Amino acid sequence: MKAEIISIGDELLSGLVVNSNAVFISEKLFSIGIEVRKVLTIGDNNEEIVESLNSLSKDSSIVIITGGLGPTDDDITRFAISEKFNQELVFNEKAFSHYKAFYKKKNLKYAMSNKVQAMIPDGFKVIDNPLGTALGMYFQDKNKCYFILPGVPAEMENMIKIFVIPLLKKKNKYIYFFQKIIRTFGISESKLFEIIKTFNIENVKVAYLPQSPGVDLKLFSSGNNKEKNIEKVINIKNAISKKITEHIYGYDELTLVEAIAEILIKNNLTISVAESCTGGLISDMITNISGCSLYFKKSIVTYSNESKISLIGVSKKTLEKYGAVSKEVAIEMVKGVSKNVNIGLATTGIAGPTGGSIDKPVGLLFVGLVINDIIKVKKIISVGNRLKNKHWFAMNALYFLFKNLRALEKKVEN
Amino acid sequence: MKAEIISIGDELLSGLVVNSNAVFISEKLFSIGIEVRKVLTIGDNNEEIVESLNSLSKDSSIVIITGGLGPTDDDITRFAISEKFNQELVFNEKAFSHYKAFYKKKNLKYAMSNKVQAMIPDGFKVIDNPLGTALGMYFQDKNKCYFILPGVPAEMENMIKIFVIPLLKKKNKYIYFFQKIIRTFGISESKLFEIIKTFNIENVKVAYLPQSPGVDLKLFSSGNNKEKNIEKVINIKNAISKKITEHIYGYDELTLVEAIAEILIKNNLTISVAESCTGGLISDMITNISGCSLYFKKSIVTYSNESKISLIGVSKKTLEKYGAVSKEVAIEMVKGVSKNVNIGLATTGIAGPTGGSIDKPVGLLFVGLVINDIIKVKKIISVGNRLKNKHWFAMNALYFLFKNLRALEKKVEN
Repeated sequence: MKAEIISIGDELLSGLVVNSNAVFISEKLFSIGIEVRKVLTIGDNNEEIVESLNSLSKDSSIVIITGGLGPTDDDITRFAISEKFNQELVFNEKAFSHYKAFYKKKNLKYAMSNKVQAMIPDGFKVIDNPLGTALGMYFQDKNKCYFILPGVPAEMENMIKIFVIPLLKKKNKYIYFFQKIIRTFGISESKLFEIIKTFNIENVKVAYLPQSPGVDLKLFSSGNNKEKNIEKVINIKNAISKKITEHIYGYDELTLVEAIAEILIKNNLTISVAESCTGGLISDMITNISGCSLYFKKSIVTYSNESKISLIGVSKKTLEKYGAVSKEVAIEMVKGVSKNVNIGLATTGIAGPTGGSIDKPVGLLFVGLVINDIIKVKKIISVGNRLKNKHWFAMNALYFLFKNLRALEKKVEN
Repeated sequence: MKAEIISIGDELLSGLVVNSNAVFISEKLFSIGIEVRKVLTIGDNNEEIVESLNSLSKDSSIVIITGGLGPTDDDITRFAISEKFNQELVFNEKAFSHYKAFYKKKNLKYAMSNKVQAMIPDGFKVIDNPLGTALGMYFQDKNKCYFILPGVPAEMENMIKIFVIPLLKKKNKYIYFFQKIIRTFGISESKLFEIIKTFNIENVKVAYLPQSPGVDLKLFSSGNNKEKNIEKVINIKNAISKKITEHIYGYDELTLVEAIAEILIKNNLTISVAESCTGGLISDMITNISGCSLYFKKSIVTYSNESKISLIGVSKKTLEKYGAVSKEVAIEMVKGVSKNVNIGLATTGIAGPTGGSIDKPVGLLFVGLVINDIIKVKKIISVGNRLKNKHWFAMNALYFLFKNLRALEKKVEN
């Protein structure tokens, strides 16, 4: 099965917005063994939309169209679809109730221009949209299956996950596709490549994906023997994992903060954080996980020296003697914040672009960690702009925490 | 002048890589008034490349092709180009010297496979590449100007800046382009549309871009009278701004936190934050701005009730009587955190997906604000998943702060 994607939206052609929707869709289709052969990005232009639908490849059986389902004048996808398939737009009661309910819930006044979003080409089915007003549409003709989805990423992504992929999986059921993702940190793409090329990998493809925080190794294979297919990938996964154990924090969708959460919950541990240069980013990441109140107690973003002193008891003397960005202050910060919890994590560093010196350059970070009353400090160097540095600081601090948690677990097991 | 972009590369269709080249090129062309009408992304496939060149629009006068110029087996763009234009590949002495010199400089051994990169279709001119081995190519036929560039972003970008844009500017020299962006919050795309359609907008185009936090309005125009062109856009900008003043936080590149920073610095104000459901996101956003230590003192992420009590003095009684997510707790939080600063901001709410009830559903937020000793509270409802809610919470809290800061400024001015 092959697919084509048509991304619609003037903004995609103006250089303002990256077409991230097409990447998301390609990746999801790829993960069930469907190849995307073409992505066409065009503006909100009736003629172009109709023309692109007329020039689809004969052997593409899936067409995914995104964008142009909004309520404004320039959103014309539904009209072009109606023209191309020669199906009149009809008022859809279900869609209309959806809009009204959505607006009511948000306490917003319903705008009349939204009424157009309830017009659906005759014969098309609608796809629910719990996150926005534009419903998706779905249509099957002799050769092709068409999905018409909104351009708002979260809404489109939700429809792909909940509706499109499950439906296509059913259609494609005799081809088995299997993949495993090894999530690594602290090892470069080229180093991984050097290690992996020494393996004899037959019929399993490897992709190197530089992600946040590290490099994801994607191993995948497709074929008509389900068990063999899985076995091949799992064997390679195990062999590679053995070689790079210390750089792996998880598999598949598991994020670094989720991996940390698992260990904390399993071992009934609590954590508090003191952040200086990361400015709240670490606690933002921790609180992205639902249920984190089980283990996460507080974070204190001590941006000023005064707050370091008054809130977590860093001594004025230490600040004066060593400076705010120092091993010593990291230790006092983490000591101060970890009272009443099992684990404390603290960061102090220079995100830049200003504030650096020869001794303490932009990109310098000290991470303090208290874990079961043992204090550890780690020095980290980052090379980037302010945002990149903050992100790299947070990821390194979290990975330092993760490694120590894992070491603790191993100790307990032994 | 209209342009089409053809991006070539299997990796662009696998969901592994975003097609950032197309965005870069679109933005550069847009900035000199050239409209990109179509971006086609295809794999390294001879048939597809030739077909896509055969199906270009008649009225596109510029075609930019990227990717597939490397030395490996799957790089076939030059062969497809040669086939399409019926121009034999000939050995190019200049290109060959370039490769040899490039390798020597890098202290690398010249690989024979690179020799293919010196093969250029007859009649094509080469474009220098100081950053890599693949030279670009350039060809003008009766109606169209073709640029064939490498897919490596840095190399492509350099050729666009140094060669393509200057050349097209010469061709397009009597067309002037001007744009203004109005950045709004708290008003929907459809509402904006209804307001703006009442204006008599002649020759100025309006694009509605749903961004974070709100909708950006892009006004742009091109024409052969530079001054008139600017005047038209500025006039429309001013007229629209008057109508929606309360929803505008800035123009062009200015972000909401930057707009807040400007007012804080100008008025010598300091701020501290107490976050519950936003989990550090607000202070992360504030600290993304370099120089924020001037006004930002601390953030206290009080995720547990215990930390609300011990760190910012919320009373146990209030927590028990009204619950952590309440107007009353928001008030006590912001009172507690704003000691020693001019401004306090606090959030307490339910990001979900769990923790909601009928009275207090997922998506409910209370924002507390202290500004010059006056306390304000605002209730906000968000509809989304956990991450979307956190983001919407943070943006609403910041916009509430912004509006009150602006009101304060006006009061001072009067």
